[in-house]
Amino acid sequence: MDGLTEKKISSKEIFKGRIVHLFVDQVLLPNGEESSREVVKHPGAVAVIAVNKEGKLLLVRQYRYPLDGIIYEIPAGKLEPNENPDHSALRELEEETGCQCKKMEKIASFYSSPGFSDELLHVYFTDSLIEGRQHLDQDEFLEVCAVDLEEAIQMIEDHRIFDAKSVYAVQYMQLKAMRAAN
Amino acid sequence: MDGLTEKKISSKEIFKGRIVHLFVDQVLLPNGEESSREVVKHPGAVAVIAVNKEGKLLLVRQYRYPLDGIIYEIPAGKLEPNENPDHSALRELEEETGCQCKKMEKIASFYSSPGFSDELLHVYFTDSLIEGRQHLDQDEFLEVCAVDLEEAIQMIEDHRIFDAKSVYAVQYMQLKAMRAAN
Repeated sequence: MDGLTEKKISSKEIFKGRIVHLFVDQVLLPNGEESSREVVKHPGAVAVIAVNKEGKLLLVRQYRYPLDGIIYEIPAGKLEPNENPDHSALRELEEETGCQCKKMEKIASFYSSPGFSDELLHVYFTDSLIEGRQHLDQDEFLEVCAVDLEEAIQMIEDHRIFDAKSVYAVQYMQLKAMRAAN
Repeated sequence: MDGLTEKKISSKEIFKGRIVHLFVDQVLLPNGEESSREVVKHPGAVAVIAVNKEGKLLLVRQYRYPLDGIIYEIPAGKLEPNENPDHSALRELEEETGCQCKKMEKIASFYSSPGFSDELLHVYFTDSLIEGRQHLDQDEFLEVCAVDLEEAIQMIEDHRIFDAKSVYAVQYMQLKAMRAAN
């Protein structure tokens, strides 16, 4: 034993919805005691840092029900069942912004909130966009805009950009710009 | 109407645990149709980018049950009921690493996963640590280490650092180092 790992004793499914699949598990702790763990299983997601030919970052303006507010995020969405993340990234970019692209690269993967969820987010980058027509899901309403890096930084200050993946994306663009300037 | 906002019609509590508070709400969409929204309410959390006197970043090595794996993260934890995030950041830093600090500043707040959760994470920075003794929660097991920036970047590549807040933290340190070098 590494002194850190917990072992599953039993698992109880609490809820299975369209997104959230909730379990409460009993676990054996490294010290031999028992505890419970609440786990939100999630299919995983993709997000795309998409830069247009003017060098601006594409953002989608969207109402987010859990926050009861409208924020600006990079294009993103859940994986469909058995969907390859590379395919999902191209699909979400096109659905939400109407853009296809010539080339896209995966730049990072990370867990959104490892304390209670297994949601793994894959982040992609593209700057070879081919513009087209948005085609959203039936219950999805959003507007697309493009901002330069300076404005994006200001939007983080203002909490208009207010979620982990989009803050990550702006930092990524900042690092890229600083490297290019050196 | 802004053409984006959804309106709550009804709300059903599904589960209330130690961390996760799950609701399924019926909502009215901007186009007048109805849909359901799954919402994981969360108390919010804090995380601390803590740099020691050697300029190294403190990380905690911890088993994360939802991922069934051990990863390295910056010190972090949930808000206690009615707890001020500033207080929570000092508390979590001390509990997990044993360190107090002379000065700490809040550098960002962002939602972890706005599609299904209202978890808001507040991120702090300190480089004025006063070392002391770790005192963990009863069901918490973790090890502390300190790494330089180059190693932290490598750990992201290796997926040893593998969660949003810690990847954010490493990028923050990279930007800080690049600004200092210019």
